[in-house]
Amino acid sequence: MDKKIRIAVDMDEVMADSIARFQAWYGRDFQLELTLGALHGKDPADAVAPEHQAALRAYPNAPGFFKDLPVMAGCQDVLRRLSERYELFVATAAMEFPNSFLDKYNWLQQHFAFIPWRNYVFCGDKSILNADFLIDDNAYNFDGFRGEGILFSAPHNAHEARHRRVRSWQEVAEIFL
Amino acid sequence: MDKKIRIAVDMDEVMADSIARFQAWYGRDFQLELTLGALHGKDPADAVAPEHQAALRAYPNAPGFFKDLPVMAGCQDVLRRLSERYELFVATAAMEFPNSFLDKYNWLQQHFAFIPWRNYVFCGDKSILNADFLIDDNAYNFDGFRGEGILFSAPHNAHEARHRRVRSWQEVAEIFL
Repeated sequence: MDKKIRIAVDMDEVMADSIARFQAWYGRDFQLELTLGALHGKDPADAVAPEHQAALRAYPNAPGFFKDLPVMAGCQDVLRRLSERYELFVATAAMEFPNSFLDKYNWLQQHFAFIPWRNYVFCGDKSILNADFLIDDNAYNFDGFRGEGILFSAPHNAHEARHRRVRSWQEVAEIFL
Repeated sequence: MDKKIRIAVDMDEVMADSIARFQAWYGRDFQLELTLGALHGKDPADAVAPEHQAALRAYPNAPGFFKDLPVMAGCQDVLRRLSERYELFVATAAMEFPNSFLDKYNWLQQHFAFIPWRNYVFCGDKSILNADFLIDDNAYNFDGFRGEGILFSAPHNAHEARHRRVRSWQEVAEIFL
């Protein structure tokens, strides 16, 4: 029996559009726009005025931040096709935000029912993953990862140049399908 | 720099005495005793009368089941000493019981503060773990695991003979320290 190649996929800014939530809450709380231009090369909290940074850093652990996030364009279709040929795991650094656990679990059940819950991983350090590929927007998650990291483009990682990069789910499909 | 050997450790019936909670709740709900004799070689739900099995199967996903569980004898002391020489991860199949996430997280923070949250893994299929050893009471978690499985004795696994077995945290210390 051939062993399937195993691909681990990060959630935030790869499957789920968490930037949209930062933008919505920043607008709600400060009546200001968080533009993609301002986010270029920066984490959200570093893209706003110093007096707003603490609030933005606290957002991801606030109840509801990860609830009902928009799905990234093309993600469902491409992952569904990948699931027919590869072993897929969802691997999210949820331990940083303990209040996110149930929202993340429910979001995966709702939008990615074809990925079994046995293949969810809520972790901190992604070097614990035994997978062949990891698709992630944070290059530091590739440190110590035993497979190949594939950097999914996000505003904050615009200046990261060390890894193979995909700019969309369409580009993921071009590599794997 | 020498890379530390990495040991992953399961929670239920290895670090945390979840059998004690089954016994307490079974007594509370049915005024009956769930003895270690009845549990020998069986999962808790299979050790009770047919009309009580559904209730026991539902316990682990009831709020509070994993809250304030007793710590297994010797576990804190031995894991603290292991943490000085090995890289420790806690790996629990929490995805089966989504209501357990926060209780498990808080329990680890309370009783095992020397293990950083970055080293917690809430998963389903433990073949995703990239570790050298896995100490677990369920032998099926060693299927596909790339390291060596070490079976921690629990009533239900009394008849399992395929793996190296430890009967206590003292025996874990004898192997690794």
